[in-house]
Parts: sequence; C-alpha cells; structure tokens
Amino acid sequence: MTNEFTKIEPGGSLLIAWQLKDKKVVLIGGGEVAAGRIVNLLNADAKITLIAPRKGLNKEVAYRIDSGQIHEFIDREYNNEDDLKGANMVFTAIDNVEISRHIYNVAKSQNIPTNVADIPPNCDFYFGSIVRRGPLQILISTGGQGPRISAKLKSIVEGALPRSIGPAINNVGKLRSKLRSIEPTVGGKPGAKRMKWMIKVCDNYTFDELAEMSEEDLDRILKGYQDNEIPKRSLLDISKVLSAIKSISPTIVGMVIGSVMTYSFIGRNK
Amino acid sequence: MTNEFTKIEPGGSLLIAWQLKDKKVVLIGGGEVAAGRIVNLLNADAKITLIAPRKGLNKEVAYRIDSGQIHEFIDREYNNEDDLKGANMVFTAIDNVEISRHIYNVAKSQNIPTNVADIPPNCDFYFGSIVRRGPLQILISTGGQGPRISAKLKSIVEGALPRSIGPAINNVGKLRSKLRSIEPTVGGKPGAKRMKWMIKVCDNYTFDELAEMSEEDLDRILKGYQDNEIPKRSLLDISKVLSAIKSISPTIVGMVIGSVMTYSFIGRNK
Repeated sequence: MTNEFTKIEPGGSLLIAWQLKDKKVVLIGGGEVAAGRIVNLLNADAKITLIAPRKGLNKEVAYRIDSGQIHEFIDREYNNEDDLKGANMVFTAIDNVEISRHIYNVAKSQNIPTNVADIPPNCDFYFGSIVRRGPLQILISTGGQGPRISAKLKSIVEGALPRSIGPAINNVGKLRSKLRSIEPTVGGKPGAKRMKWMIKVCDNYTFDELAEMSEEDLDRILKGYQDNEIPKRSLLDISKVLSAIKSISPTIVGMVIGSVMTYSFIGRNK
Repeated sequence: MTNEFTKIEPGGSLLIAWQLKDKKVVLIGGGEVAAGRIVNLLNADAKITLIAPRKGLNKEVAYRIDSGQIHEFIDREYNNEDDLKGANMVFTAIDNVEISRHIYNVAKSQNIPTNVADIPPNCDFYFGSIVRRGPLQILISTGGQGPRISAKLKSIVEGALPRSIGPAINNVGKLRSKLRSIEPTVGGKPGAKRMKWMIKVCDNYTFDELAEMSEEDLDRILKGYQDNEIPKRSLLDISKVLSAIKSISPTIVGMVIGSVMTYSFIGRNK
C-alpha cells in the first residue's frame, strides 16, 4: 500500500458553487438575515419567492420587493407545505424555532436543500464570507467555528488579489467561447487539446496582460490554436509597460527611501 | 426609492459549504476525475458508495478502496435507479455521455443534488480550486470561465494567508464551545451578547496571538465574559515578541538595506 496520494484532512465541508440561474428559491422571513440571503440569491440569478408579512419587513427587504427584484412576494407567514412546492432551495430566516424545524422537516421529506438560520443541525449547507470580482467568487469558510475570522480573512484575500483579475477572467472566458466555436467537439482528443492549449494561454500571460487584451488580441491568439502555438506578447496590442509597473516591489521602494534618507543625513554631517 | 443598499452583481453562483458528515454519497466511475472527487468527499467526512468495475480503476481510487476509505464498493457498472437510493448527493465521472445524462435524470426525479463531470448543464453545482488550512477552507470559483485562473489564484491566496491561521481558528472554536457551556441559551439577548463578545475577542488579538494561546489563556479570557471585558495581551502567556516580529514590513527591511548600502558607498568615497 503506497502513500504517494493526497493526504485526507477530515473535518471539512464540501465547498461548491450552486447553480441557481432562473431556479425557484423559497425564502421564509423578512428581517435582517433575510436581507443578506436575498443579496446572495440575486447575485446567483435566482427567482426568489419571499414569504413574510409586509408589516415588520426589514427596510432593505422592502426595497428589494418594491424595486421588482423579488420574483414573487407572499404577504403572510409561512402557511403549509404547498409553500415549498417546486423550490430548488429553501431558506428560513425567522425567530420561531418550532416553525423553522417544521419547515426543515417538510423540505427534507421532499429532498429540497435547506438552510435554517441559526440552527446548524437543520442546515444542509452553511454560508461564509464572500469575495467577488466580476466572474470571480471566493468563499471563505471556517465550518462555523469562526465567522469573525472569515470576515477578517476576507480583507486579507481582497488585498492579495491582482487588481486586474475580473477583466482577466472575462477575457479568458471570451477566448474559451471563441475556441469552442471553432472546435465544438465535447470530450475526447479535441477536448484534451483545447484544455491544454487554454492552460498554456493562461500561463503565458500575466493577469494584467490578459485583462488588457483587445478583441483583436484574442483573435490573434486564437490563430495559434491549430498549430498549438501561443503568440509572443510583443505581437499583441497590450502594452509591455504594464508588467514593468507591476514589478516595483515595496522592498525596492523602501531601498530608495532608505538611500535618500541616509544620503541627506550624511550629506548634512559631512 | 433609495439606493443605500448592497448593489446586486448578477451572473454568479451561490457559494456554500455543503455538510456531508456521515451522509451517503454515490460516486459512479473510477478514473482520474473520480479520484479527485473522492479526496473532496473524504475531506468532508462523507460515506462514499463507489460504483465502478475494479478492472480499469485508477491507481489512487484502488488505493482508497483497499485502504478502507470507501464505505461501500460496488464492483460493476451503474445498473439502475436503485443504485442511487438514499444518496444525499450523486456524482458521475464516466466517459459515457448517455449514461451520465440518464443518471442525472434519475437523480433529478428524486431531487438528489448531482454533479455530472464534463456536462455543465447537468450539474446542480460546480467545483473550484480549494485552499485548506485545518478548519479553514477557501473555494475559488470562476463560474467555469477559467479553471486555470483559479488554480493560479490558489497560490496567490495561499501566500497571503497568515501562517498561524489554522491554529488561530481552532483556538477561537475552543473558546466558542467553552463560552457555550457557560452561556448555553440559543438566540435572544444572551445569543447577541455572546456573538458581540466573540467579535471583540477576535478583533482584540492578532492571528499569531490567537494561535499561540494556551488552554489557561482561553480560560483567563473567558473570565471577562460576564463583565463584557477582554483581558490585555500582557496578562496572557502568549509572548509579546510575536506581534513585534510580525510587524516588520518589507518596506522597513528595504530601508535598512538601502541605508547600509548607501552608507558603505559614501563611506568608501569620503
């Protein structure tokens, strides 16, 4: 029995990107927690059915309803299991623990993924802190052990991301769909060639370069696909200055400051 | 209509941490993709039922079976819908597109969340790159637009994480459960007080300090809870040197280098 394989680290969750585009999601409750859920759900293009009495709605929730961002608003408390019909996911965000548990059981009997706010054992999944840069999403999860820590980590991660990451990913996405239009085969040898070539493209350019590529640049790059080649940076419109600017490190800045300070100090004392 | 609320950025996914501890997960296929899925699933404490003919198993998959990490191994191809019975999630990782789609339809008819490798429209959820540090998990997702980019971002995020983040979260988790044992009430005022105090604790210490706390330190901190206080660092065992070391920035290092270089240069030319 060898041990060359990835070591298992139990105790975690399965981190996934759930697809909700145009899916019905039922959210029960209209308070502050519901307001947060709505943002997450709208960012994922879900069709939200919100069940909560208008009287007592959080200001932000009311705004979402009145501005037409909620697909269906049912102005009352949760009633019965018909309320969950056809839901892809169910969220409760109400104070009543008994009703929350009841809703969870109904959802379970229909196998609908459910998150019951504040009752972890009645959750199929948890949330965490989210970083967003256009097509890029990052989830920071501590498995419920340290929500404040994940909020602190969020700013560390945000600080570390390349400035140009959103546009860079968008351009890679554009190139991928251009590539699929000239090589549409699913799987097999063409699929593998396509994947390998895309990896080469991503590795050949910096994030800033990928971000700055024009439509013409993308087409020039695409021409290399048949022969499995990647054009040199110098053949593209993207300015070569870009990467030079980026490479100035804080250490070099410090060296210059230190040098100037010491020179003026010694100069004065000569 | 005000606009003071979070701006919606559509086009994303719902990033979540799915709970699989002791849940049955059915994985169909035994190749390289299956090997990757198994690692993710074992890290989330799932009970895996693997359906794949032993002949043709990937080496790593065979190792997982033979070392007892797979809960149930069914040595044959997928047979019929009974194979999915009782599954919390279903994963297919086989080359046959038709069988994949069939399994997806069966899973859908039972409302079981499903990921069909290589066929995005038949996936309830996608994967991304994962960073792991003990209790901390980070998912990097580009919504399928740039898998290579998320792999590159993974190393950027890994480099930005505080060295001590795993032990820091573990200690915060310990403190939370100690706190729950002296203040067990769910929700309400005690819940709010507990949450606010934990936030204060997390904000009052650095990651390194949190990581280095002894059991006695945690108990000393806990004593402040009733009066809503946080003990000063100096009252704890954790060395104050820790934060001093961490605060030396590359800029300061650069200043020192620059200073020394300039001094020796000018000194020599005097």
